[in-house]
Amino acid sequence: MTDYDAFLSRAAERMKGSAIRKMGTVLAQAGDIISFAPGYPAPQTFPWAEFGEIARELLSGADGSVLQYGPTRGFRPLLESIAAIMHARGAPTGLDRLLVTTGSQQGLDLVARVLLDPGDVALVELPTYTGAITAFRNVQAEMVGVPQEADGIDLGALDATVDRLVREGRTVRFVYVVPNFQNPTGLLIGRQKRLALVAWAERRNLLIVEDDPYRDIYFEDSATMDDVRPIRADDPQGRVIYLSSFSKTLAPGFRVAWIDAPAPLAAKLEIAKQAEDLCTGGLDQRVVYEACRRGVLERQLPQLRAHYQHKRDVMVRSLTRELGTQVTWPDPRGGFFLWASLPEAIDTDAMIPRAVEHGVIYVAGEAFFVNGAGQHLIRLSFSAPAPEQIEEGVARFAKAVRAELSARAVPSAAAPRPAAR
Amino acid sequence: MTDYDAFLSRAAERMKGSAIRKMGTVLAQAGDIISFAPGYPAPQTFPWAEFGEIARELLSGADGSVLQYGPTRGFRPLLESIAAIMHARGAPTGLDRLLVTTGSQQGLDLVARVLLDPGDVALVELPTYTGAITAFRNVQAEMVGVPQEADGIDLGALDATVDRLVREGRTVRFVYVVPNFQNPTGLLIGRQKRLALVAWAERRNLLIVEDDPYRDIYFEDSATMDDVRPIRADDPQGRVIYLSSFSKTLAPGFRVAWIDAPAPLAAKLEIAKQAEDLCTGGLDQRVVYEACRRGVLERQLPQLRAHYQHKRDVMVRSLTRELGTQVTWPDPRGGFFLWASLPEAIDTDAMIPRAVEHGVIYVAGEAFFVNGAGQHLIRLSFSAPAPEQIEEGVARFAKAVRAELSARAVPSAAAPRPAAR
Repeated sequence: MTDYDAFLSRAAERMKGSAIRKMGTVLAQAGDIISFAPGYPAPQTFPWAEFGEIARELLSGADGSVLQYGPTRGFRPLLESIAAIMHARGAPTGLDRLLVTTGSQQGLDLVARVLLDPGDVALVELPTYTGAITAFRNVQAEMVGVPQEADGIDLGALDATVDRLVREGRTVRFVYVVPNFQNPTGLLIGRQKRLALVAWAERRNLLIVEDDPYRDIYFEDSATMDDVRPIRADDPQGRVIYLSSFSKTLAPGFRVAWIDAPAPLAAKLEIAKQAEDLCTGGLDQRVVYEACRRGVLERQLPQLRAHYQHKRDVMVRSLTRELGTQVTWPDPRGGFFLWASLPEAIDTDAMIPRAVEHGVIYVAGEAFFVNGAGQHLIRLSFSAPAPEQIEEGVARFAKAVRAELSARAVPSAAAPRPAAR
Repeated sequence: MTDYDAFLSRAAERMKGSAIRKMGTVLAQAGDIISFAPGYPAPQTFPWAEFGEIARELLSGADGSVLQYGPTRGFRPLLESIAAIMHARGAPTGLDRLLVTTGSQQGLDLVARVLLDPGDVALVELPTYTGAITAFRNVQAEMVGVPQEADGIDLGALDATVDRLVREGRTVRFVYVVPNFQNPTGLLIGRQKRLALVAWAERRNLLIVEDDPYRDIYFEDSATMDDVRPIRADDPQGRVIYLSSFSKTLAPGFRVAWIDAPAPLAAKLEIAKQAEDLCTGGLDQRVVYEACRRGVLERQLPQLRAHYQHKRDVMVRSLTRELGTQVTWPDPRGGFFLWASLPEAIDTDAMIPRAVEHGVIYVAGEAFFVNGAGQHLIRLSFSAPAPEQIEEGVARFAKAVRAELSARAVPSAAAPRPAAR
């Protein structure tokens, strides 16, 4: 037998599968399970009729380039639409700064490859998005976590962390943040803190990697466009690499996202992408472009905000009713996720089999922490399930929590009393 | 100004753009140019009507998963179709060995990341596919080239090269080959040599990375299905990682390809892919699957063989007429490329501006050599241009060659005679 382990690169030896993707596998194999695990958008919200009409026109055969290889940078008209979107977000840009990526996951991977050597440090929020952890780990970077406050990353702790790392002789390249409705916490970075972060990056000579997929999904009862203004919009010195995506606003199946970066970095990211997949799908890019051009995207956004806000309401109401005294969370003001803190007695990863038994799954908090914390935390996605499934799922989840609590209570009650009395 | 160079990883410092992609940019900016540069399939051959019908059905909205995130391994029914294709190629396989990739370029990149550490050696053919060079370079591997004979890679030279590398204490992981209608030479590896290569890999405890995108495009006047039997089909010990693609047989715009690898390696490749793009496009995978299921692919293949064979004929006839005494080449028995050897006086890279001036482009041979050779060689793709464009393009090319030869002859004739007489 060939010993394949002997052939693995050091990067491959360290590679670990994503906890979220693993939950996807659990779900695919299971029967009646309500999933709060992956952050999937709701397919009923997709503009199917428009997509169908657009695809029909594109596939007429009149334009052979639709299914041909295309430029690595992306389909030029789509890049122009993206520039217009950036402008509307308060961050005017140029085509020499833009790159279409095959999902934002590719953007994270490219950023990692272009900026990080093995052993370099990427600063991340505690907790942070697992896909970023995977991408940074795959280039053998070390991630150092920085705690968050209610208005996002703790700037004092961030600065102290860099101080320490510099003293230790470590190379720090950037801090990675998800400023809007963070995955997994749902938190926003406050306006003043965004400005302070850019000034800090300039002072420290570091970059900011701003990952912003949820920006358009702000809930109108508690957040405004001003709240979601990108860090990149106030970045006079070019410290920010900005990533965003059509996955949450049109559909993830197209795998169309983008990076906006200072031109010299965009040029390197383009070359890295050449080696990764030559170009993003031609049909996909054109469908997304047409959805922008025809106003489909623009019409979607208010509907999506209302759709996910309603689901947030249902989840918050259900959780309050079922577990209001035992579980706490910050109310999400946008995005797809509710980040819940369970009683400390519960290890949410260890509880997964019990949750599956009760017909519900989630992602255990640990997956989002680069420092091993998060044992009693969980991420609940309210984006994909229907409102009645959310209610039922929360009820199942509450049963699982109560069962877990009493199972944990029993052995310690039954345990022999300490000898000393 | 921020000094972005200071932020680059060592990998990024070494990254270089592809010569072929660069030609694409030249082409996009130029006026009346006939391109023999990129290996694009001919869009008129794409089954547009069938694709349109399939897309219309898929986008009805009846199945939300069409545009949702999907499993990293790929869409299960497509994986089953790929298993059937592998079976038909003489290489039965299992789903634990298969991974859908976002083009074969991603396959090469994943293989590089999973198998190569910086400084490790990847053995490649002289010349070899530029996309592989880029992928291997991006993980900071060193490529060592092995000459080819008329029936493919020189096994004696291959073994001697490994001997030398082992003596030098280098780590060698695999040899990368394109066995069928190689890009760029169009050559086939002979049947006996394929078997010998597997036995050699077993003896040397190395892997073979077999990249096979052109297998179905054999020209029926000079090659048979037996000639294109994959190396992977006779691989009892699991030494082969096999890559193939739908880009040349259905359409590259879908970015759907696959890897077949020993299960433990397939599992690592899957995790590497998770970090690169989570999953390949959902609509793309389903269109390709339906094209397999409905027999569209099967019906395409004989037509494609005839289509490209005819273009090969036109190019060979035109070249013979125009430059038969000055240029030599092996007649392609399949695939997209003719590999031509020009008079030694010509540097094909330096000649590019003159070719563009004459309204024709190609890829200079140097791009395909990891040892700096190839200055008087060129790759001419006959796949995309129409037959009359091929004739006209070869005529233009011939004019450029003659102009280049006389330009090179003049200065040396006009140069002052040596003083000594």
